[in-house]
Amino acid sequence: MTSPDFEKLIPQGDDKLRDVCKTCGFIDYKNPKIVGGAVVTFGDKILLCRRAIEPRYGYWTLPAGFMEIGETVEEGAAREALEEAEAKIIIDRLLGVYSIPRIGQVHMMYLAHMEDGHIAAGLESLDVKFVTFDEIPWKEMAFPTGVWALKDYAKIKGQKDFAPFTNPPEADAMVR
Amino acid sequence: MTSPDFEKLIPQGDDKLRDVCKTCGFIDYKNPKIVGGAVVTFGDKILLCRRAIEPRYGYWTLPAGFMEIGETVEEGAAREALEEAEAKIIIDRLLGVYSIPRIGQVHMMYLAHMEDGHIAAGLESLDVKFVTFDEIPWKEMAFPTGVWALKDYAKIKGQKDFAPFTNPPEADAMVR
Repeated sequence: MTSPDFEKLIPQGDDKLRDVCKTCGFIDYKNPKIVGGAVVTFGDKILLCRRAIEPRYGYWTLPAGFMEIGETVEEGAAREALEEAEAKIIIDRLLGVYSIPRIGQVHMMYLAHMEDGHIAAGLESLDVKFVTFDEIPWKEMAFPTGVWALKDYAKIKGQKDFAPFTNPPEADAMVR
Repeated sequence: MTSPDFEKLIPQGDDKLRDVCKTCGFIDYKNPKIVGGAVVTFGDKILLCRRAIEPRYGYWTLPAGFMEIGETVEEGAAREALEEAEAKIIIDRLLGVYSIPRIGQVHMMYLAHMEDGHIAAGLESLDVKFVTFDEIPWKEMAFPTGVWALKDYAKIKGQKDFAPFTNPPEADAMVR
């Protein structure tokens, strides 16, 4: 078995350059990937997970991860909270949709809450904890979208009806 | 050059079966794909496109298509309207996020409007037109998510602040 050996070609019927494997002819259509995650509250506290994996090992994050085939976005976000923090979360609504064109990702962050408050570090977490908004370790957060979601969460606290947030204005230099 | 020849394997460090090419070792991570589209209004009329491509050749659709790497979801939705209907649209906000687990797609439908009202059939359209809500050809619509988006649009007409819609309750049998 050899390694894939891609060249850039425009496949028939397409209008964009794609990676086509010289060995086997496979066309690797690269489409943006969805990350589903959540700002999970229990009372007035927010769930954070400390990453046990790269990238950003040791930094804090909202529970979030790549959506899989066979699930809805909401189910993906709930699965990630269960995997990373053993947290059974109830999804309330969409908080924000943040696009990162540079790496081809769309982060869909939900508002969610817990009823039982049980959390424990899953395989991909070193630690999990509840914090108040004032206790959020902003400088030790793993990813910008987690920070944006938390700041957007603070803007709508108490409101039920609002348009989901998108990339903040200052994001453009970061995501392009 | 041979054809790709995949077998199901759990790659190292993963916990799910993936398609791995026996010939070249390529791991085909299949992640859900994002379709970006819009309910585009011009005055009290809505933009529809008649498909010139399969699937659902000849049926009517909202302008929508697969998001590409290097763009935001909003930019993808606007690009599709330009490609399919020569329509320069202004995205207003997210209307609905509809997940179709069975085929691994997430359809993100925006509310958008036009200022100049110029439309013309693009390469992928047989025809394009503006219709009032009462003129929508429901039985000739190409895809369920277009129908859901139009029905959800009718529910919030005039409102600015609302949570984006998700799959309607009756959808489950259709999308699983």
